[in-house]
Amino acid sequence: MPVIVQKFGGTSVADLERIRNVARKVKKEVDMGNQVAVVVSAMSGVTDQLVGLVRQISSLSTPVSLEEYDTVVSSGEQVTAGMLALALNEMGIPARSWLGWQIPLISDNAHGKARISEIKSDAILQSIREGNVAVVAGFQGIDGKFRISTLGRGGSDTSAVALAAALKAQRCDIYTDVDGIYTCDPRIVTKARKLHKVAYEEILEMASQGAKVLQTRSVEMAMNHGVRVQVLSSFSDAEGTLLVDEEEVVERKKVTGIAYSRDEARITLTSVANVPGVSAEIFGPLAGANINVDMIVQNVTEGGGETDVTFTVPRADLQNAIAVVEKSRDRIKYKTLHSDNAVAKVSVIGVGMRSHVGIAQEMFKTLADKGINILVISTSEIKISVLISEEYTELALRALHTAYGLDTE
Amino acid sequence: MPVIVQKFGGTSVADLERIRNVARKVKKEVDMGNQVAVVVSAMSGVTDQLVGLVRQISSLSTPVSLEEYDTVVSSGEQVTAGMLALALNEMGIPARSWLGWQIPLISDNAHGKARISEIKSDAILQSIREGNVAVVAGFQGIDGKFRISTLGRGGSDTSAVALAAALKAQRCDIYTDVDGIYTCDPRIVTKARKLHKVAYEEILEMASQGAKVLQTRSVEMAMNHGVRVQVLSSFSDAEGTLLVDEEEVVERKKVTGIAYSRDEARITLTSVANVPGVSAEIFGPLAGANINVDMIVQNVTEGGGETDVTFTVPRADLQNAIAVVEKSRDRIKYKTLHSDNAVAKVSVIGVGMRSHVGIAQEMFKTLADKGINILVISTSEIKISVLISEEYTELALRALHTAYGLDTE
Repeated sequence: MPVIVQKFGGTSVADLERIRNVARKVKKEVDMGNQVAVVVSAMSGVTDQLVGLVRQISSLSTPVSLEEYDTVVSSGEQVTAGMLALALNEMGIPARSWLGWQIPLISDNAHGKARISEIKSDAILQSIREGNVAVVAGFQGIDGKFRISTLGRGGSDTSAVALAAALKAQRCDIYTDVDGIYTCDPRIVTKARKLHKVAYEEILEMASQGAKVLQTRSVEMAMNHGVRVQVLSSFSDAEGTLLVDEEEVVERKKVTGIAYSRDEARITLTSVANVPGVSAEIFGPLAGANINVDMIVQNVTEGGGETDVTFTVPRADLQNAIAVVEKSRDRIKYKTLHSDNAVAKVSVIGVGMRSHVGIAQEMFKTLADKGINILVISTSEIKISVLISEEYTELALRALHTAYGLDTE
Repeated sequence: MPVIVQKFGGTSVADLERIRNVARKVKKEVDMGNQVAVVVSAMSGVTDQLVGLVRQISSLSTPVSLEEYDTVVSSGEQVTAGMLALALNEMGIPARSWLGWQIPLISDNAHGKARISEIKSDAILQSIREGNVAVVAGFQGIDGKFRISTLGRGGSDTSAVALAAALKAQRCDIYTDVDGIYTCDPRIVTKARKLHKVAYEEILEMASQGAKVLQTRSVEMAMNHGVRVQVLSSFSDAEGTLLVDEEEVVERKKVTGIAYSRDEARITLTSVANVPGVSAEIFGPLAGANINVDMIVQNVTEGGGETDVTFTVPRADLQNAIAVVEKSRDRIKYKTLHSDNAVAKVSVIGVGMRSHVGIAQEMFKTLADKGINILVISTSEIKISVLISEEYTELALRALHTAYGLDTE
């Protein structure tokens, strides 16, 4: 019998009625003759509450023991797993909960953001084969010393995909509060369409570009192990979006989707000496301060001896980034520092870019036609991103959506 | 170095400030050169909340899976254990949390009210010897199949005493919201005195007589393993009450303490045929209905062919008990059934009874002098209990307290 893995996030198990709803979704798969493993997150808000407790008890100087952090925070998934097993029992479906240490799901010891190293699937598979639904507490494992580890935010997605790989599941259904992956955010672009299939590489670019549907690591893992992941809604019966290999995406549009992020800020340093090593002087200290620099451009001015450098950082890190750069002023020798936190990044994404030309050109023209100025450009094989003034975000998204032929009829 | 076990109940860890307070109490023992294992309950109210969740998801017909009940409910202690370890780290004290499965504390598989069968103390003892405070989640263990078990209400007391026995601890300090065991309830008898020492047997009688300070099973375990248990307050620095062997109670008063319970109801059946087997006809069905019958008296009437039978049941079970008895009316052949739920049980307790005579006589006279009628009497080696009309409870307690010379000067 085929094994199906289902995963339900925090909003899908937020209260008792929703947990019963999840149990009905599981029952549906069982009734169809499938064997099922379900991975659950903590009830919505519970993880934040537990993290809040830990933060409050550790407000002073010492660094928090991440082993204890994980011990406290992992309890949320433990509760949901037991509760869903009970709800299934209530419907007459044999089910039992599995905590990370019971499987065991073994991770490295990078507590708080551990990586799965192995899932010993013999016991859980035997229980499934005996006719029990396996209800697995997501987000958690154990390290080599029998301490509880957690996999970082969104880690339950990774638990589900890793379990699907270990169980050689036919499918891994990730139930969320959206009913699939869209060509663009439907709250902004009303003509956005749901995608039936999307390539792993595309969803990776979309996720890192701000379309937060799946934890990046879970997509990488699905790609590496060839797990067929479906993203669908726990609140409707509509078909979702299937993550597949690039070759399987039949409809080769030039652009698959358009993502955006408002979590951006820009810093420009003028008249930086154009000499070897100056980039290291700028970006080394930023990396050291754990500030993630995203886009970088460098414009050599006339004469070539000096250059303007522009880069983006997360908006929340802007003040910190400015302070770091100013500390190195003597070594960087820039003339002025300009910053702007009212900027947004808009990206067009699609594996079709590999075989189509002129896509960047089309983007620039579309934005120019609307009078939108491009501040920074960066590209990858299957993505073009531009930084624009934040106030143009919606206008840009709608114009590009139409220009690339993504609108619903 | 001596090992001390400390146990803190739910009200002692009810919020962050109280958890920090507990950490300070632990630090005090560490500073005195002791090695410490601390057992904690869930934060006050959390267990009830978790039990409530389980009850709500399982409201229908099927019996609740107690394995899942335990999985959900045990998460409360897990959180407190992690939090206290963090609070200790914050004070510069090396500490780590231990969940039931990490020790492991092995129990039978009577989920929801499991009994400890073994504590494998090697790993935890090694960690303690290396200078770490062991923060143990109370109330929980694992069964033979690696499922989480819980030890029933008040089970953290038992966890603490069992751990103290396994670690051969010098002392097991049970911190509660009272500062020790008193000769009587100080809310009623203002002259009640705190006892410095009390015999295990006495506390067992007091607990079962309504003075709920320690889980009965934990006292039995302390008695069997010779664990020196101290009951003291987590909110003061006052000395508490030490539980000791009978031989160690130096001050041999006739009576050690006076307990009471309002959780009583009385049923009297008149003119029951005085023939063999009639008691079984009455009490068999009550036991079958899980109704706990406490005191029983039988008065043979003149002629001897018939008898009146009086017994007590928990007040909450009275209606149910009446229904059970009435069902057997044909076989018991009683004339009338009288019931009364406005009754209370008052008990005088003390190992001194073994060597003093006339204690019952003194009790009856004291009550008679106050015009209090005795409805039922039952006795054991170290206890005399009487059932009286509830309205006389306070009067009876104060009169007896004075009569046995227990008043503070």
